[in-house]
Amino acid sequence: MNPSSLSRQETWRLLILVGACSGILLNTFQDEGAPLIASIAFSGIVFAVAYSLIRWLGPVFMNAGLKGKDMAKPKRPEIPETMGAVCAVVYLLTLIFFIPFAFYKDIVAATSGGGNRDVVIEVHHVETGRMLHRFPHGRLASYLSGLLSLQCIVILGIGDDLLDIRWRHKVLIPAFGAIPMLIVYFVDFGVTQVVVPVPLQPYLGSFVDLGWLYYVYMAAVAIFCPNSINMLAGINGVEVAQSLVIAVLLIANDVLYLAPITPYPHPATDSHLFSLYFLLPFVGVSLALLLHNWYPSKVFVGDTYCYFAGMVFAVVGILGHFSKTLLLLFIPQIFNFLYSTPQLFKLIPCPRHRLPKFNAVTGLLDASVTEWTMPPSPLIAAGLELLHQLRLVRVTRNEEGQIVESTNLTILNLWLVWMGPMKESRLAWNMVIVQVVCGIFGLFVRHRLALLVFREDNRTFGLQSYY
Amino acid sequence: MNPSSLSRQETWRLLILVGACSGILLNTFQDEGAPLIASIAFSGIVFAVAYSLIRWLGPVFMNAGLKGKDMAKPKRPEIPETMGAVCAVVYLLTLIFFIPFAFYKDIVAATSGGGNRDVVIEVHHVETGRMLHRFPHGRLASYLSGLLSLQCIVILGIGDDLLDIRWRHKVLIPAFGAIPMLIVYFVDFGVTQVVVPVPLQPYLGSFVDLGWLYYVYMAAVAIFCPNSINMLAGINGVEVAQSLVIAVLLIANDVLYLAPITPYPHPATDSHLFSLYFLLPFVGVSLALLLHNWYPSKVFVGDTYCYFAGMVFAVVGILGHFSKTLLLLFIPQIFNFLYSTPQLFKLIPCPRHRLPKFNAVTGLLDASVTEWTMPPSPLIAAGLELLHQLRLVRVTRNEEGQIVESTNLTILNLWLVWMGPMKESRLAWNMVIVQVVCGIFGLFVRHRLALLVFREDNRTFGLQSYY
Repeated sequence: MNPSSLSRQETWRLLILVGACSGILLNTFQDEGAPLIASIAFSGIVFAVAYSLIRWLGPVFMNAGLKGKDMAKPKRPEIPETMGAVCAVVYLLTLIFFIPFAFYKDIVAATSGGGNRDVVIEVHHVETGRMLHRFPHGRLASYLSGLLSLQCIVILGIGDDLLDIRWRHKVLIPAFGAIPMLIVYFVDFGVTQVVVPVPLQPYLGSFVDLGWLYYVYMAAVAIFCPNSINMLAGINGVEVAQSLVIAVLLIANDVLYLAPITPYPHPATDSHLFSLYFLLPFVGVSLALLLHNWYPSKVFVGDTYCYFAGMVFAVVGILGHFSKTLLLLFIPQIFNFLYSTPQLFKLIPCPRHRLPKFNAVTGLLDASVTEWTMPPSPLIAAGLELLHQLRLVRVTRNEEGQIVESTNLTILNLWLVWMGPMKESRLAWNMVIVQVVCGIFGLFVRHRLALLVFREDNRTFGLQSYY
Repeated sequence: MNPSSLSRQETWRLLILVGACSGILLNTFQDEGAPLIASIAFSGIVFAVAYSLIRWLGPVFMNAGLKGKDMAKPKRPEIPETMGAVCAVVYLLTLIFFIPFAFYKDIVAATSGGGNRDVVIEVHHVETGRMLHRFPHGRLASYLSGLLSLQCIVILGIGDDLLDIRWRHKVLIPAFGAIPMLIVYFVDFGVTQVVVPVPLQPYLGSFVDLGWLYYVYMAAVAIFCPNSINMLAGINGVEVAQSLVIAVLLIANDVLYLAPITPYPHPATDSHLFSLYFLLPFVGVSLALLLHNWYPSKVFVGDTYCYFAGMVFAVVGILGHFSKTLLLLFIPQIFNFLYSTPQLFKLIPCPRHRLPKFNAVTGLLDASVTEWTMPPSPLIAAGLELLHQLRLVRVTRNEEGQIVESTNLTILNLWLVWMGPMKESRLAWNMVIVQVVCGIFGLFVRHRLALLVFREDNRTFGLQSYY
């Protein structure tokens, strides 16, 4: 079979999926519309579109030189690279097509001039056209700014994949991507107050205005999410799988704010609907990608995908006002980042690639090492020895007792130090389980333990909404 | 000298330009802000940034395989390709950074809650944050939707340059790029009435609501502009030069609507300010590109630039509500398109490239030809003969009188048929002059002759504004 075409069975399944979803979609154009159902239907369609395009475009990408070798396979096959860009483009076009669905109720209300009192209170007829006053322009601007940030990062991510940008410069790509969102936030909303935890309220009051620090915080979140996903990479499927787990857990968290679980109207409902509109199609395209990127990979995803996925999370977390919750789902990524810092800051030599090493004899992956051509300074040697005792790193010494090798500081290598060499697919599955367990723990902290420092879970009362 | 670095003289000039513009920019943060002056200062800065980046990134692009041969030079040198993408990215980031400047007055007014009565009429304090009611959300959404369309087309344009997409599919790229703008227009404004020309008013009334046909019209403009610029390509500098001429003439047209020429407040002022904010930085980046792309080219611009430039014009024309005026500046492009149709629709064979042919002996360009391996059908032969008599095409016959060659139907080849072979640089200059003359004629038609069919020039009374 031609590896770049769909099998007959695949074609039929995808066509049935698209047909069913299109039917659902057409039925949402009734009454006030059903944006959430439309979003689910869209996700099914984009899954089919992304799945087919990834398959079809393989040879086109290879011809254009977008290809890479899979080093963790005996034959090191060459496969298409940067396929995340295809997903990202499909996703972005979908979110654009979704705009009328997201605002259908508001268009209907604004056009008919009645029917839904909480939307249209006053009727002002603008010179030529429909009345505009009660249309939620702020929400539209917020949606558009999220899209702009995502497009920005996709453009810069493609540039990165093409031009092989240096590590130091790469880190800043998400910062540029975050700019549209931050600027529109500044221009259109400018809410920089945050709720103060109860133990600190006697000193700071109920709210504290962070001012420009709030923008620094948002920028930090937007820089962290994409880079941290990019950093936890290196084996088949792990970038996409971790993103999917985070997305699904965020969706679960969003659903907690919808009726019937949380009574409507609730101030945070709109924020979490917004989040769902962004996340559901993301799950669609990521699933299509994962089916091609899971072990043994038929395509690589490229840095574009990692940046793009991280920015989707940053956008929903920031514009949906739950960035603290978001970070609770990034526990493995935060650990991986902190654990990597000695290499990032060059205290320990950092080779260009730190991915686990493939042993062609056993067919297993083992932790990769950095070689100490010069023995480390006494301080660093002591630190490494301590980490070695704590089983957080594995060092090899020569006969004189000098450190000659230490494992690279990534969570993938650490797992291999702990568990011993294993197959690539098993390592990927283990990472998925780690991500799921940490994420569920994070959500538990958010909704149960947070009551210890905040007065109430914001599912019953919230200040996140600004409309 | 290293061809990818700036000379000392260039460095100093660019630094002085950036310094002067930054000084001007800082001074605009006073009173109500001075967005137009800020936009001019930004244009100077982006010129310097784009100029330097185009120079520096040359080798990086070559390494990444983004390079092409200049066929109209004796040695066919290889030079970097797709440099328009650099301009486009610089431009897009600039327009994003410009948002707070464009809305400075509104932010100040909305935050202080007074000072400018025509902006803040009622003061509604939103729960946490500044009052939002009089902030021009509609204008912001319009600005953001323009940006989204431009980003869309840049992503797809880069894809086109990389993946070598087929001609038939290429044509649709601007259609996808136009979608964000059209959808936001639909959701947020939805004004689809147009003014009826005076001779038709007894039959149709003063306005006619085009409904969905208005969207078809907007989409057609957005598809035409980028493709028509892409079609008028093929010699050093001609894509960028024609775009610059159109941009400068559009700026001249916009200035007609500003004080002191047109008294403020005028309903169309905001639309034309919007247009200036988009066009001034475009002139900055295009000038930087032209200095590298003019004969003899040191870089190629790629399809990305043509799509991007055309979409900038479509965005300002559509969102600024002067798309008819816009089309009057596209006379050479419209002619080129109509003239090309026999080849586009395959009535006459269409080779992959129709650019003028370089004669290595004389060093001149002459019209390229399409070869008739089979003699044309009698009808087409008669048509070609007629065009030949009208000097609109040059045909070559064999001894039996059968047509064996006819010149390719592009304006560049036609000009060479008329004027005879000439140097590439002279042909480019001639095209610039054609564009300028046609454009000035177009503006004259717009502001003088239009009075014959419309009641008044909209500089004194207008319906374009919807705020």
